Amino acid sequence: MRNRVNMIAVGDELLEGRTADTNSGRIQRALGQHAVQVAGIQVVPDTKEAIFQALDRTDVGDIVFLTGGLGSTPDDLTRDMVAQWAGVALPQDDAVRQQLEERWKRLGRKVGVGVQRQCQVPEGMAALENHVGSAPGLVGCLKGRILIMLPGVPSEMEGLLPAVVQWLTDHGHLPEARHTLLWRTGQIAELALVRKLDSIREANPELQWSWWLTDWGVDVRLAVEPDNKLGKAQLAAVEAPVSELLGHLVYSRQMESLPEVVGRMLKAKGLTVSVAESCTGGLIGASLTDQAGSSAYFRGGILAYADHIKNELLGVPEAMLQKNGAVSEPVVRAMAEGAQRQLNTDYALAVSGISGPGGGSDEKPVGTTWVAVATPEDVYTWAYRFPGDRPRNRLLTVAAIVDSLRRSLEFGPGQVPWMADDSWCRT
Amino acid sequence: MRNRVNMIAVGDELLEGRTADTNSGRIQRALGQHAVQVAGIQVVPDTKEAIFQALDRTDVGDIVFLTGGLGSTPDDLTRDMVAQWAGVALPQDDAVRQQLEERWKRLGRKVGVGVQRQCQVPEGMAALENHVGSAPGLVGCLKGRILIMLPGVPSEMEGLLPAVVQWLTDHGHLPEARHTLLWRTGQIAELALVRKLDSIREANPELQWSWWLTDWGVDVRLAVEPDNKLGKAQLAAVEAPVSELLGHLVYSRQMESLPEVVGRMLKAKGLTVSVAESCTGGLIGASLTDQAGSSAYFRGGILAYADHIKNELLGVPEAMLQKNGAVSEPVVRAMAEGAQRQLNTDYALAVSGISGPGGGSDEKPVGTTWVAVATPEDVYTWAYRFPGDRPRNRLLTVAAIVDSLRRSLEFGPGQVPWMADDSWCRT
Repeated sequence: MRNRVNMIAVGDELLEGRTADTNSGRIQRALGQHAVQVAGIQVVPDTKEAIFQALDRTDVGDIVFLTGGLGSTPDDLTRDMVAQWAGVALPQDDAVRQQLEERWKRLGRKVGVGVQRQCQVPEGMAALENHVGSAPGLVGCLKGRILIMLPGVPSEMEGLLPAVVQWLTDHGHLPEARHTLLWRTGQIAELALVRKLDSIREANPELQWSWWLTDWGVDVRLAVEPDNKLGKAQLAAVEAPVSELLGHLVYSRQMESLPEVVGRMLKAKGLTVSVAESCTGGLIGASLTDQAGSSAYFRGGILAYADHIKNELLGVPEAMLQKNGAVSEPVVRAMAEGAQRQLNTDYALAVSGISGPGGGSDEKPVGTTWVAVATPEDVYTWAYRFPGDRPRNRLLTVAAIVDSLRRSLEFGPGQVPWMADDSWCRT
Repeated sequence: MRNRVNMIAVGDELLEGRTADTNSGRIQRALGQHAVQVAGIQVVPDTKEAIFQALDRTDVGDIVFLTGGLGSTPDDLTRDMVAQWAGVALPQDDAVRQQLEERWKRLGRKVGVGVQRQCQVPEGMAALENHVGSAPGLVGCLKGRILIMLPGVPSEMEGLLPAVVQWLTDHGHLPEARHTLLWRTGQIAELALVRKLDSIREANPELQWSWWLTDWGVDVRLAVEPDNKLGKAQLAAVEAPVSELLGHLVYSRQMESLPEVVGRMLKAKGLTVSVAESCTGGLIGASLTDQAGSSAYFRGGILAYADHIKNELLGVPEAMLQKNGAVSEPVVRAMAEGAQRQLNTDYALAVSGISGPGGGSDEKPVGTTWVAVATPEDVYTWAYRFPGDRPRNRLLTVAAIVDSLRRSLEFGPGQVPWMADDSWCRT
């Protein structure tokens, strides 16, 4: 049973300012409920010396994650360096070779020379099949460390994580799970959320609080170590009051994304949704279709980036556009009604905003964003003023409109999905 | 003159899976063209031991960047730890104090207690004014290292970088710029690209090659140190042959994204584009509107996720959908024609594919994706079979269709934008 984790991210691209290491964070989130401590992250180049040095800096008993450098190009060294460092052989594994060859045949491709290296498994380690890419994950104990090698491509790495956590658990390498509670909130600023919970925090000193900014809002996490009796009692005692206090701000109590939640609600009620997007250019539709099975509720949408498209495809009157401008309450309302009508859906989401950097004015500064939620009964509109740059404002717009749909589905007919205590980016 | 850089990112939040360290990348990009080697990045928690250990792991002569931990709360330790580690005093600096007090008055705020610590400057270091936030940058030579301390907030850190680079240059700490060449390629697999260049690589041993997977394809980078005469000659000699060999696979020779390139081409020619998206659900429109000023060429699009929308809004005949299925050549062709007609644009992009995990068949396995590029003269279609999971297949689809538009604009009328040697995800 270990609780000290060391991360080693291998790859010149991580040191050349091209990409940031996000894998270490993904791994940490996957281990989240277990009481592991990440002692540090080392990002090192694709060189023998650097990988050796990074491995030497880990301690006996550590769980060591290495990500990257498992590809088939000459500069992919991780597999070989780990074997050399541990002084073990690096034979080809027939089962892995077969997996790779079958995979490539399935994809209708010739078996490349890459298979030669990607089916190598250091003695004393086991391979975990990679269903997203080719290089398998490698797990095992060498030199007193629990070593885990994973591909650097995030989607491949994440695809392997469940199997890795399973392996760690099966072999008793993970400590007992920490007791945790989670509230995922939308449309409230981190600081406002922290303040809301001040008194409960002061009254329960045994609890470990953490606040995580996500693509959809802010997560509140509560944790106590498995051996902390008093902490467990406090944890049980605060759950109801915290839920009460946060109320409609909470979109989920589990590790699911906001689009997952909305998709589940729509599916359960047999309802459909469409979008009419201007400034987001398709991001809302993209996030609603992230989920497998989204065709059950997402019908489609109209990207009305140019104003004449708002008129021609969504039926927004020319005069209305001229009088109010494209970023206005009547226009976004007409866009939502247009999508609801054109795509014949129960709900429709519309946004029109100034993402920046240009296009702002004193009256409508950059970040000003009108959103509309058309429901079977009524159309609700709201204006946000987002504080970020162009990419951030577009993401905030998606989070805001999808959460507004979630609230609308939760609150039911006749209820405005925004409330006085929504501190988030209010204009 | 130094060329070895060590980065130390300080902060618990970087180890808890909340935020990734992006500052090291920003610093590296700012130093990019200089022949600095980033030896490694260490991400460490806000503890005395961890910061000491990280500093001890640097070598005499290194340029050491520390980011984070310069705030005014008790867990901001970087300033104090560096002074202790170097064994120098940490006096308050009157000039810095004055700057901070003036700044806070300007912002109409009371001078907080934070000023007490944020105006401290370790002996032997100088302060660089922070125009975005309060904590100044700190630069100087201690223990034989060139130490640079910067705030962890990315906007503050980036605001200080120009002054830091200036300081490093003025004091002769930065080497001459490295000589580099870049080719950004699309629609070819990394390994196929490496093999294409095998003979040139073997013939030019002085050149440092690197291969970077990006959202849009694979980057090929060539570099030589400034003092390497033979290398410089080889660099000059290979540029033409490499460009010749890669030909139409190259979408840019500079650090610009594929949507930027396509946007520039469309703008220059005064051409417009629209999209008809099925499996991508809006991702193509979203990526084409990432760029500020995209309204000059992007008109909008139709998200036809449900088949009846393909018929109702894009005019794809019911019979065609029933006979061929939504993921087929005639349907994607009709979708592109429909978007081109409905949105009245010069070009239109359409995709219809099986992203997975479900929906696959023997005939059309998961990953099968039909794309169409409608040009003013003709409509071109192609089928890919992508090897990833749902999110990856959707991203690969965006990269494929946007690069196909890029080629179409480059090749001109009557030219099919796909070629026999496109190894990438060919069915």
